[in-house]
Amino acid sequence: MTLLATPAGKFFDDFIIGETLQHGVPRTITEADSILYIALTGSRFSLHCAQTVASAAGFNKMPIDNFLLFHIAFGKTVNDVSLNAVANLGYAEVVFTRPVFAQDTIAVTSEVIGLKENSNGKTGVVYVKSTATNQRNQPVLSFKRWVMVHKAKGAAVTGINQLPELAAAVAIEQQHKPEQLDIQGWQPWFSDNQRTARDFNVGDTMFHRDGITINDSDHSMATRMYQNNARVHFDQHMMNDSKHGKRLVYGGHIISLCRALSYNGFGNALWLTAIHGGSHCNPSFVGDTIYAQSTITDIDLTLQDQGLAKVRINLLGIKNNQPSNMDSLYTETAGRKSYHSDVVLDIDYSVLMPL
Amino acid sequence: MTLLATPAGKFFDDFIIGETLQHGVPRTITEADSILYIALTGSRFSLHCAQTVASAAGFNKMPIDNFLLFHIAFGKTVNDVSLNAVANLGYAEVVFTRPVFAQDTIAVTSEVIGLKENSNGKTGVVYVKSTATNQRNQPVLSFKRWVMVHKAKGAAVTGINQLPELAAAVAIEQQHKPEQLDIQGWQPWFSDNQRTARDFNVGDTMFHRDGITINDSDHSMATRMYQNNARVHFDQHMMNDSKHGKRLVYGGHIISLCRALSYNGFGNALWLTAIHGGSHCNPSFVGDTIYAQSTITDIDLTLQDQGLAKVRINLLGIKNNQPSNMDSLYTETAGRKSYHSDVVLDIDYSVLMPL
Amino acid sequence: MTLLATPAGKFFDDFIIGETLQHGVPRTITEADSILYIALTGSRFSLHCAQTVASAAGFNKMPIDNFLLFHIAFGKTVNDVSLNAVANLGYAEVVFTRPVFAQDTIAVTSEVIGLKENSNGKTGVVYVKSTATNQRNQPVLSFKRWVMVHKAKGAAVTGINQLPELAAAVAIEQQHKPEQLDIQGWQPWFSDNQRTARDFNVGDTMFHRDGITINDSDHSMATRMYQNNARVHFDQHMMNDSKHGKRLVYGGHIISLCRALSYNGFGNALWLTAIHGGSHCNPSFVGDTIYAQSTITDIDLTLQDQGLAKVRINLLGIKNNQPSNMDSLYTETAGRKSYHSDVVLDIDYSVLMPL
Repeated sequence: MTLLATPAGKFFDDFIIGETLQHGVPRTITEADSILYIALTGSRFSLHCAQTVASAAGFNKMPIDNFLLFHIAFGKTVNDVSLNAVANLGYAEVVFTRPVFAQDTIAVTSEVIGLKENSNGKTGVVYVKSTATNQRNQPVLSFKRWVMVHKAKGAAVTGINQLPELAAAVAIEQQHKPEQLDIQGWQPWFSDNQRTARDFNVGDTMFHRDGITINDSDHSMATRMYQNNARVHFDQHMMNDSKHGKRLVYGGHIISLCRALSYNGFGNALWLTAIHGGSHCNPSFVGDTIYAQSTITDIDLTLQDQGLAKVRINLLGIKNNQPSNMDSLYTETAGRKSYHSDVVLDIDYSVLMPL
Repeated sequence: MTLLATPAGKFFDDFIIGETLQHGVPRTITEADSILYIALTGSRFSLHCAQTVASAAGFNKMPIDNFLLFHIAFGKTVNDVSLNAVANLGYAEVVFTRPVFAQDTIAVTSEVIGLKENSNGKTGVVYVKSTATNQRNQPVLSFKRWVMVHKAKGAAVTGINQLPELAAAVAIEQQHKPEQLDIQGWQPWFSDNQRTARDFNVGDTMFHRDGITINDSDHSMATRMYQNNARVHFDQHMMNDSKHGKRLVYGGHIISLCRALSYNGFGNALWLTAIHGGSHCNPSFVGDTIYAQSTITDIDLTLQDQGLAKVRINLLGIKNNQPSNMDSLYTETAGRKSYHSDVVLDIDYSVLMPL
Repeated sequence: MTLLATPAGKFFDDFIIGETLQHGVPRTITEADSILYIALTGSRFSLHCAQTVASAAGFNKMPIDNFLLFHIAFGKTVNDVSLNAVANLGYAEVVFTRPVFAQDTIAVTSEVIGLKENSNGKTGVVYVKSTATNQRNQPVLSFKRWVMVHKAKGAAVTGINQLPELAAAVAIEQQHKPEQLDIQGWQPWFSDNQRTARDFNVGDTMFHRDGITINDSDHSMATRMYQNNARVHFDQHMMNDSKHGKRLVYGGHIISLCRALSYNGFGNALWLTAIHGGSHCNPSFVGDTIYAQSTITDIDLTLQDQGLAKVRINLLGIKNNQPSNMDSLYTETAGRKSYHSDVVLDIDYSVLMPL
């Protein structure tokens, strides 16, 4: 009997600037993914719920929810990028290039675009740009993310410090309207006669009222559906010895819950074009009840003649608490936010919304 | 920053007799809904499990289970009708007009057919007739239901008292056989060689033996799949302060569990034609084990020449107990049933069953 | 009111050697089953995840995972074979004859091939050979299994003792390569550039590192998806009085978890051809974290010219523990294994693996 080493993921020292990683296990996204996503998150954005709505909006088939697409694409990168991550530090420049439909197959590559060794000599930050393509090799999504990764035991200290360019936001002109999308046939009742872009102003803030409590199987199934194999989400035996003694809920599940909750008020936030950045401010665990609050931070009228606005939204996730009971969700000092311990998510994204 | 009010649903005073509400978020029902329904409820009614069975029974495609259809249609009405409900009081005249197949899209409207203010001046009962149509605008399902809804704070007392007609049962001639259904090719082994209509008599009662324990994610996922957004099912943080301190399991999930359990004995109860009425006698919570008992209350032979009977069944759901350990499931005084505290469901429905 | 007896399954005395049981509720397997299987088990074997991968491997459509097929076929037999089982004792000669694709419908029959009354006069062992066929009546899977079943109360002691032939292993020539499968187009990145057959030697052992904690709904949903209606998995109220006081996790779910975990290291174990035998050494419960270890026990080169090896693998499942903390997983005396109390699974199977 020979004991073979188990594939254990890359350490900081294994990454090379400019290298492209072709991630394994491409994935055909199916209508079952869409239904399971609804069942796991409670999403009700109608473009992804009804063929009649999709048709009225110019699509031949219901498009896949871009948040679902993001989680599947992100999941593909975990095995090569973040299996030995200490922490997922952030993402930026998440751009949705092209809609994806049931039966499309997604493959994902990541280019290493930055490396910064930490002064402790034990960890470093890896920056990658990941690109998801469909079966016709057309890009459908790209994003940058950075993670703090362990150095291998005994690896030499190199002091490497090559930082990539990271835009503070996805430019308006990079926020793509799907070519099929034609909002002329859109009916207000599709989304419960909710506010459209002309009913919002920059600075408008809404607490979305509903809460959703996280169950064990909810987040586990979602994370497995995304084929994200980070151990912290699944292995309670290992996590018994961790700081919180509990499995961590995948941050992407929190994003999807908050987004689903935001339907109540922002139901016309139809089409995700970009995620500018996001922080998982505090961890979430089974049993936490998640609430959400949105603030409009920009309304762009470039597509006005097509009846659409590009609306930028700051979405905050809160656990077991409500803004009305909290002095503030965060304080800001020199551009740096310090969050209330009940805030679990701060995400900055843009959508197309009917005017 | 401007705080916007969150859509909070209609209060009693917002409803107008004769008004029709077009509910948001139409829904394409898919084969994934059918599979998830099986996974969540344990249903084994073979017409909805196998294309070969559906074909033998005259269908080109497997029809969607009418209970699944009902829950999806019901879910659509929650946002406009019962978001501020104190209690779902009942339903009647649930009629399945036409079969639904995977890829059909359901939209639902509700007409306000009755309003009765309660003497306390704080609540009232709203009666609606809801109709679900497919993408060809053909009605597939209609039902009446009534809910007790809060009056808005400070709303004037009107003393309105307009009650609708509610039939005690769906008439035999309104119990539709799908035109495709042809039972000649039906094989007894499809449904485990169980009793057919000729083996039953009015008054026959069967306890279905199997039990099913409710897990957190089971009922949450089912309720989200139906896009029923009533807060009591999802928000534990809010429910901590409620009478039971726990999230309530959606009553429709209990119906589906009892129906699924009834397969063991009533496996030939093929096609749901009508629900005459139903009560959720007591609440169910996570951890409860549900059992079921059925009694035949009518066997109609109008379709005898087609090899079918219209069989009326009274299905009772019981939690954490069995009839043999209970003096009685209910007592009846002047037509009013008083239930044992372990009885959670009393539903009166009709099916087509091979003779 | 007449109380009818509930169908209660067969007792030992009800089985007749040579008799063929046609199991109820045939099942159309859909792409939703595949996605739900991924969500419930975390499986990442890429042939079942991406149409592009399936096409590159010669298939027109993604084939259904043979483990998923096995569980569905097994589930069909429970109602007639093992509803009154004391224990599932084993299975052998599990042969996958033909690939199954989404939309195929599976029906299952079982022939009674052996009966052995136990000396206690209260139970007996029933041996069956089950065969699953598709809608063209082509066999897709066959297997033998044996279960200890209660005798009916008061049934006569017969001393019957007719044992079937049970092969110790499925012969190499009975391990079928699907005719479509052509590995020439296989890309190493499909399966994360993992070891292929030429990188393995008989005796190689790998602990797969990842662990997966079982949640209530995970195993319940999987078992219901397979329409396996054995009561011990679902009825907590009944199980309160059992030895462990808890619902038992369906052993097949443990097989699938271990198989999914084995992707990390054995990701090229592409196509299940046979299960030679298996034991559920100890029960698993909700909250247990499952780990897996594989050992290569044979590498057959019969299909070398097609770029494939037939690799035999011994897969062990462990709960809440790791081999490095255990003196041994089992000890063997006279061909009989005695397992560590944390070992929950010992399964012996063969796959096709690229060379």
